[in-house]
Amino acid sequence: MEKRKGRVTLPSEENFLKETKELMERWGADAIRDSDGTKLDDEIKQLDAKIYTTYFVARGQNEFAKNHMEECQQLYLMSLFNTALTEKLEIDFMKGYFEEQLQPDYFHDPKKYWEVIDRTTGSVVDAEDWKVCEKTNRVIVINAIPWHEYTVSFLVYAIWDPTQMYNHITNDWGNKPHDIPFDVRQANSNQHMKTYLKQWLKDNPDTDVVRFTTFFYHFTLVFNNLGKEKFVDWFGYGASVSVAALDAFEQEKGYSLRPEDIVDQGYYNTSFRVPTPAFLDYMDFVQKFVAEEAKKLVDIVHESGKEAMMFLGDNWIGTEPYGKYFNRIGLDAVVGSVGGGATLRMIADIPHVRYTEGRFLPYFFPDTFYEGNNPVLEANENWLTARRAILRNPVDRIGYGGYLSLAYKFPEFVSYIEKVTEEFREIHDTIKGIEPYSGLKVAILNSWGKLRTWQTHMVAHALWYKQIYSYLGILESLSGSAVDVSFISFDDVINDGVPEDIDVIINAGDAGTAFSGGNHWSNEKLVTTIRAWIHNGGGFIGIGEPTACNHEGHYFQLATALGVDKELGFSLSTDKYFVTPVGEHFISADSTEFDFGEGMKNIYALSADTEIIEYSNGEVHLSSHPFGDGRAVYIAGLPYSEENTRLLMRALYYAAHKEEAFHKWHASNIYCEVHAYPSVGKMAIVNNSMKEQTSVVFDGDGNSKEVTLAPSEIRWEDF
Amino acid sequence: MEKRKGRVTLPSEENFLKETKELMERWGADAIRDSDGTKLDDEIKQLDAKIYTTYFVARGQNEFAKNHMEECQQLYLMSLFNTALTEKLEIDFMKGYFEEQLQPDYFHDPKKYWEVIDRTTGSVVDAEDWKVCEKTNRVIVINAIPWHEYTVSFLVYAIWDPTQMYNHITNDWGNKPHDIPFDVRQANSNQHMKTYLKQWLKDNPDTDVVRFTTFFYHFTLVFNNLGKEKFVDWFGYGASVSVAALDAFEQEKGYSLRPEDIVDQGYYNTSFRVPTPAFLDYMDFVQKFVAEEAKKLVDIVHESGKEAMMFLGDNWIGTEPYGKYFNRIGLDAVVGSVGGGATLRMIADIPHVRYTEGRFLPYFFPDTFYEGNNPVLEANENWLTARRAILRNPVDRIGYGGYLSLAYKFPEFVSYIEKVTEEFREIHDTIKGIEPYSGLKVAILNSWGKLRTWQTHMVAHALWYKQIYSYLGILESLSGSAVDVSFISFDDVINDGVPEDIDVIINAGDAGTAFSGGNHWSNEKLVTTIRAWIHNGGGFIGIGEPTACNHEGHYFQLATALGVDKELGFSLSTDKYFVTPVGEHFISADSTEFDFGEGMKNIYALSADTEIIEYSNGEVHLSSHPFGDGRAVYIAGLPYSEENTRLLMRALYYAAHKEEAFHKWHASNIYCEVHAYPSVGKMAIVNNSMKEQTSVVFDGDGNSKEVTLAPSEIRWEDF
Repeated sequence: MEKRKGRVTLPSEENFLKETKELMERWGADAIRDSDGTKLDDEIKQLDAKIYTTYFVARGQNEFAKNHMEECQQLYLMSLFNTALTEKLEIDFMKGYFEEQLQPDYFHDPKKYWEVIDRTTGSVVDAEDWKVCEKTNRVIVINAIPWHEYTVSFLVYAIWDPTQMYNHITNDWGNKPHDIPFDVRQANSNQHMKTYLKQWLKDNPDTDVVRFTTFFYHFTLVFNNLGKEKFVDWFGYGASVSVAALDAFEQEKGYSLRPEDIVDQGYYNTSFRVPTPAFLDYMDFVQKFVAEEAKKLVDIVHESGKEAMMFLGDNWIGTEPYGKYFNRIGLDAVVGSVGGGATLRMIADIPHVRYTEGRFLPYFFPDTFYEGNNPVLEANENWLTARRAILRNPVDRIGYGGYLSLAYKFPEFVSYIEKVTEEFREIHDTIKGIEPYSGLKVAILNSWGKLRTWQTHMVAHALWYKQIYSYLGILESLSGSAVDVSFISFDDVINDGVPEDIDVIINAGDAGTAFSGGNHWSNEKLVTTIRAWIHNGGGFIGIGEPTACNHEGHYFQLATALGVDKELGFSLSTDKYFVTPVGEHFISADSTEFDFGEGMKNIYALSADTEIIEYSNGEVHLSSHPFGDGRAVYIAGLPYSEENTRLLMRALYYAAHKEEAFHKWHASNIYCEVHAYPSVGKMAIVNNSMKEQTSVVFDGDGNSKEVTLAPSEIRWEDF
Repeated sequence: MEKRKGRVTLPSEENFLKETKELMERWGADAIRDSDGTKLDDEIKQLDAKIYTTYFVARGQNEFAKNHMEECQQLYLMSLFNTALTEKLEIDFMKGYFEEQLQPDYFHDPKKYWEVIDRTTGSVVDAEDWKVCEKTNRVIVINAIPWHEYTVSFLVYAIWDPTQMYNHITNDWGNKPHDIPFDVRQANSNQHMKTYLKQWLKDNPDTDVVRFTTFFYHFTLVFNNLGKEKFVDWFGYGASVSVAALDAFEQEKGYSLRPEDIVDQGYYNTSFRVPTPAFLDYMDFVQKFVAEEAKKLVDIVHESGKEAMMFLGDNWIGTEPYGKYFNRIGLDAVVGSVGGGATLRMIADIPHVRYTEGRFLPYFFPDTFYEGNNPVLEANENWLTARRAILRNPVDRIGYGGYLSLAYKFPEFVSYIEKVTEEFREIHDTIKGIEPYSGLKVAILNSWGKLRTWQTHMVAHALWYKQIYSYLGILESLSGSAVDVSFISFDDVINDGVPEDIDVIINAGDAGTAFSGGNHWSNEKLVTTIRAWIHNGGGFIGIGEPTACNHEGHYFQLATALGVDKELGFSLSTDKYFVTPVGEHFISADSTEFDFGEGMKNIYALSADTEIIEYSNGEVHLSSHPFGDGRAVYIAGLPYSEENTRLLMRALYYAAHKEEAFHKWHASNIYCEVHAYPSVGKMAIVNNSMKEQTSVVFDGDGNSKEVTLAPSEIRWEDF
């Protein structure tokens, strides 16, 4: 069989022509990219490969920027909390911020654009009662109420691009100039971006694909006075703010925003906050604008005969691929970093582009590629978690980043990637566009819905946080499982009800967060719609503190359906008799031990009908409860593991009352999975582990056989 | 030295004269009591001892009660939550309740006194839209909104006294009649109680002390349909409700109560609920009434030349000894059960009586006194925990309960109690009325203040609950420590500020409970008063979720003082750099390992000034923070142990900035303590453990010496 080619992007660098050609051949690469800090030689650009070139829209033009400092990007920041000891309070509002990154905006009148808030009462201090000292960067409050706490919400200019700042500080770039970010919303910047792009396209005839990194507004990334990260929100709209934006918002939406709408008590509307209507309006406003402006640049690229690709990260705010304006941009492709299955699906499922590309790990950097380390291990792990998701929906291309010369020094790694690229092409060519078998339709219900498809419970993209891993496991498990996954919002349910074909709704998160839902659960329409839907046969899975909102005698507003609630102390006087787990249960049939991650305290069963599956330490951590014709399952937490993936799948089938279908296209061994593609009569049996595995494998009719798979093996069979 | 006598009460029983005399002699008893289920022989009543006789005011008079069933006691109950599937909803409101205990009150118009509540919206259903079917005990709601949940709040008659019911069912008393509780608020019952008491006093000339068990209203104790405990609240006012009470309340307070004021979403205003103004009014109303009526009975007792003693339990509702009407009752004494130091202080500190008595453990019942068990162990443990508290403030008498004949079979136990009674008398005679040395003045701050002195975080009296032991340890530790303890309420602080002589305020509890304070912490006056007080040099200790109330950017409203807050997910985007514990700290200087009990998740330090003392699992569990001239300490939880007692004492001294005084009257060994009585120049060095201990012991001037104490030893020294 002839070796397949293509669908792979290589990073390259200067003075690396021969080896690049060799690796292109071995990995079947058909595209070459530069990276931040690497340049391509002309000879490389002449190879038989598409050339991707990184393009920065809103930075890296200091000559222009320095002449237009009033067009710098802006943010609203909040000072620390300051206790008034007397009626006069001086607030060092820049305290803790990095002055190399951020400078107070004295160009626009602070009295108009800033807010001093009494955080003890929540009231705004009259502008008569404070003044700014520009020389010392202080706000002086007069007529303060002693022992109240005050904050200042103030506008700053961002004079250093956060990504370049991060790289600069991390790599100790010394005197290298700081990239100044400029704002597309300002006239000169807007014009410059287009003019410069046009010229650049002329100057780079060898570039086939303009890799936008990215467009206009960086996710919120603010450093502290020590030059270290202070605040990071991969979804944050902080850097999209400006006086011009505030004015335009008022024009468009008919009301003006307060600084507090952005500053949000210092929480800055992170995606864990239940979004306010004003903030949703603001996001919509930014997204629409960004899409319009991005389209103009994409059009320019297209006019030059090149392709436009967007990197999903850095300055991606407003371009959300699952948002309602993304299709207007007209991009050819999106490329993003793949940390596992969920991030792969986040890229692969993106609509309205011709192709998607995943940048795989490990990055060819010295932190992994050093003598004595085996980068194959990381690559293998990354590939196995991503492959599950690829088998549900492949990205169209894979790629790597960093220094190719570094990877080249690890021949085992080069061989391994040769195998991976081949395996990827085989999967892609076999199943791209083919609908995989799905046993169930699952909806993740939270405040964000579709907009944050495959992006729930994330802080900084794909980093581990104690407070999120017990929920992120849900996405990771689902990303490679034989279920259809959609993301719906509370507003969707309130306005349109539960989509008709959903089998199971999942609501997961800590109380009060956008993911659990907070006060949404006191909404009569939401509660009754879901309650009716479950009672009529729907399946519901609550994880952590689902439907939590202390209201009228329940903490979990769907407690009656879930059959469990959380003890807050108020009902300690009520005896809790339901503490005995069922002996065996469909949901735990494959479980040898349980791992609920951070778990959840003080959950108790409400009724004898509650099927307690796991009870320990005086608490329920896993249960199911019938409610009318439906079922509601409770899980205390679900970090990612093969065991928990199986637990979740069983919980889904049980909740949906479809236990009999659970063994269709099924592998008994939790480290194996079966992906079936009925329309082409093919199935892939995969070993998701790095050890040999034996499993009973079931087809769609219940026929089974035992198979033994080599470590990481994927075995294709026709049926 | 002559053997001391007195201050001890024995239980006795029929046909046990000789042994009673022997034990009286050995234990130095000067009083004899009957128990529930035992009677005293006439010969015993003639012994040289006061005779206590148990007296029930509101039950055990079935002949009377049966003729006045409309004067039975009443409760408001809430049905289960019922989901409306259609517009018609039939609610079996008695479902889950014990019909032998409780019967719906159809005597008073349900339309007037009951409420049907839509728990999805919280609104009351129009009385036109429901009706009661008395035959089936059902409420039928018409015009229900499908998928809303409904509850019925309804009045019942209590036809079985809860304590007798408990004893009856537990001991399988078969056909023994059920004691019917009658209500002092009703004319016939009120009259009968007095008439009967007068006659009873005549009929019981040998009785010296009438031991009221207790007065009129039992704490809330409701059984389920299986005849088991369903709801128990030792502080519960449930059984004090009646139509007559509701009418009188309206007369007195000028507004009427709704059933919901009592039913409280099904939480029934347990002491963990932040009390509503209406419920506080209701408690005040009941307390005043109970005091008035109890006084009448006490006066009758006094007229007969006998003493009136109250048992602190059973029907004690409205008699709260730390409440504002207790002094009006005119009691001679209170007796209560001693489970440890905190319960001892709860009895010993009671004002307005001539003497107090503690009933010690173990009860002379077969669950402890069986062959092969050594009751001395339980007695020794009980004595050691209680002795710490006795050394702070002795009860005036101790006593025992149960079957004396059973205890008599255990000669080692008899000898041990001989020693205990002697030791008790020695302590009492040496220090009663003498002010012990106190290094600090500590105030426990919560919603209840003085009313619930030594009674915080309790559900059913002295039982272990997972959700309370991490807070109960605070009281237990303080009960025998050399600090003055007072209990203050948020309203006290709001109205009168912090009492002038307080060194440290403790606020402890789970968020939202009456003990932490819930929404009280959004009260500007409360927050600023405490904030100013700390800043001016006060000490503050927060345990669990102190000052918790999600408001204006803080979860802990005193976060700025505490230097820690709890991560709810909203501030995950903010980097948390302060994670490194200090090497050594005054507070943990005696700690070998930490036990925070249930602990608290996701607490993080806010500033570099926060002295992190314990950090594990990504969380702060123990820290201190300077705030102006004051300090605020955070502790994740404090179950009772010698080690935690020491930790708390150190935290108190540190918070108060009085570390230099910590070693006054101090024992270095955590199992030992020094109690000093400067006005009489005496000190007691005690070994609180059952093992020999060696300790360095410090006097009030810093002089020290090493002492070795036998197990449980108390050593008196003059100075």
